[in-house]
Amino acid sequence: MEVICKAKAFQRTCEEARQKGKSVGFVPTMGALHAGHLALIDALRACGCTGIAVSIFVNPLQFGPGEDLDRYPRTLDADLEACKSRGVDWVFVPSVEEMYPAGFSTKVRVEGLSEGLEGRFRPGHFEGVATVVAKLFALVGPCRAAFGRKDYQQLRLVERLVEDLAFPIEIVPVRTVREADGLAMSSRNRYLSPEERKRATGIVRGLRAAVEAFEKGERLAKSLEALARAPVEASFDAIDYVAVVDPKSLQPIDRIEEKALLAVAARIGQTRLIDNVVLGEERLL
Amino acid sequence: MEVICKAKAFQRTCEEARQKGKSVGFVPTMGALHAGHLALIDALRACGCTGIAVSIFVNPLQFGPGEDLDRYPRTLDADLEACKSRGVDWVFVPSVEEMYPAGFSTKVRVEGLSEGLEGRFRPGHFEGVATVVAKLFALVGPCRAAFGRKDYQQLRLVERLVEDLAFPIEIVPVRTVREADGLAMSSRNRYLSPEERKRATGIVRGLRAAVEAFEKGERLAKSLEALARAPVEASFDAIDYVAVVDPKSLQPIDRIEEKALLAVAARIGQTRLIDNVVLGEERLL
Repeated sequence: MEVICKAKAFQRTCEEARQKGKSVGFVPTMGALHAGHLALIDALRACGCTGIAVSIFVNPLQFGPGEDLDRYPRTLDADLEACKSRGVDWVFVPSVEEMYPAGFSTKVRVEGLSEGLEGRFRPGHFEGVATVVAKLFALVGPCRAAFGRKDYQQLRLVERLVEDLAFPIEIVPVRTVREADGLAMSSRNRYLSPEERKRATGIVRGLRAAVEAFEKGERLAKSLEALARAPVEASFDAIDYVAVVDPKSLQPIDRIEEKALLAVAARIGQTRLIDNVVLGEERLL
Repeated sequence: MEVICKAKAFQRTCEEARQKGKSVGFVPTMGALHAGHLALIDALRACGCTGIAVSIFVNPLQFGPGEDLDRYPRTLDADLEACKSRGVDWVFVPSVEEMYPAGFSTKVRVEGLSEGLEGRFRPGHFEGVATVVAKLFALVGPCRAAFGRKDYQQLRLVERLVEDLAFPIEIVPVRTVREADGLAMSSRNRYLSPEERKRATGIVRGLRAAVEAFEKGERLAKSLEALARAPVEASFDAIDYVAVVDPKSLQPIDRIEEKALLAVAARIGQTRLIDNVVLGEERLL
């Protein structure tokens, strides 16, 4: 496994791999790798990728003022170990200066999809995501890239970006990996105290309640949102949103015709967690 | 020569050419081709490109309300003839719907460089340019792309875009091609009546006056701007700007140390023309 810090060297390595006939798969991450990230690697392998590139970069552009950029977990040694054990070929670990040298001034924005849900509570977040993803895609030139469904809005935004700008890349969405009690895997779970960790299942309990009601025939967004909200309200300190939206446009809907995304964001102490389920498509264990 | 209307087919063709070992050069145009465009093709050939792709697309995103999108000259048959005679391999002629299908919502913006000069008079123009260029680059995947120095701000913006987003593309700047009397070649010159056409040399006469003064030692921006402005004022109906700026940042400067861009935009009737010279680098015939 090669660990590369320089953008040009990383680009050259990926280019050489492609020229040797490798089918390059790419997993962009902010490090602090957990089983959810490893599932992304496995998904690319299962799609037939014969070379896997992983980037580890805590992207300052996607953090707002007052967010957790400074305390975001950095666990490089363990991350590299995990990549190695999963058979990753190339790990790109650039500095902020390497990704955004002095004078950097290009921004990529996906209108519409960036504005609701996370976008309302994290202004500028998705412009940061779109910009770094566009740059990483240009560096790697992968044939496939994997993104977790836990960050569902990000996944939709990247799908849109790739379609709009004609990147010749297949986006592989990967199911959320959960702890035994249902909590969605997240690097931010490390922030939780043992007591907060117990309360944190409130979100998945809310999602489950809504899935059950949906399966029994409930189709009204307001009713499903209320069911999902109750356990979150009981266990979290604050709710940013509990919302039923169209799974493609992410626009609010009143009544579910076929499928809908139920997305939740809430805070325990300083920790902000998100999770979601696509009603009519997924079940939650 | 292949003429291709569909984005996916064009992307596939360029990809196949690359895989066959072609060194693909790319010239994005809005059609209405003239000797300036043909010089771009020749420049790529001179750089060693063995396959040349040209796009012809009047990009609505880069036209503001009240600008000349509707009357912009469309001369497809003559354009294809010109491409063929110059040995172009692939011409991409997409419809607006092919480039921007329903739901298209990604925008690319280059901050700083987009705001002065043209940006002040054409709000949104450079966002349209950056967006279409990013998409065309992703479609073609060229190793080189040629841009004319007549659209100097656009050239700088594309250079910045390519560097920031790490597109593995060499940007080849090409000297402005001029008519016998010095008028810079432009598709918009077709708008001029014979009488307006004569007056239109005011800009190049202004640039020449400034070059002469610069060569005699004048270094004050204000003085050089005044010299360039006089013949434009005498022959055009309105001046948007006559500005001496730093050739890299395009920020206004007071005194020229080594080089400076002198850029002019002015209107005759309904026709808006631009031109420029880099003082300390170019002479004008």
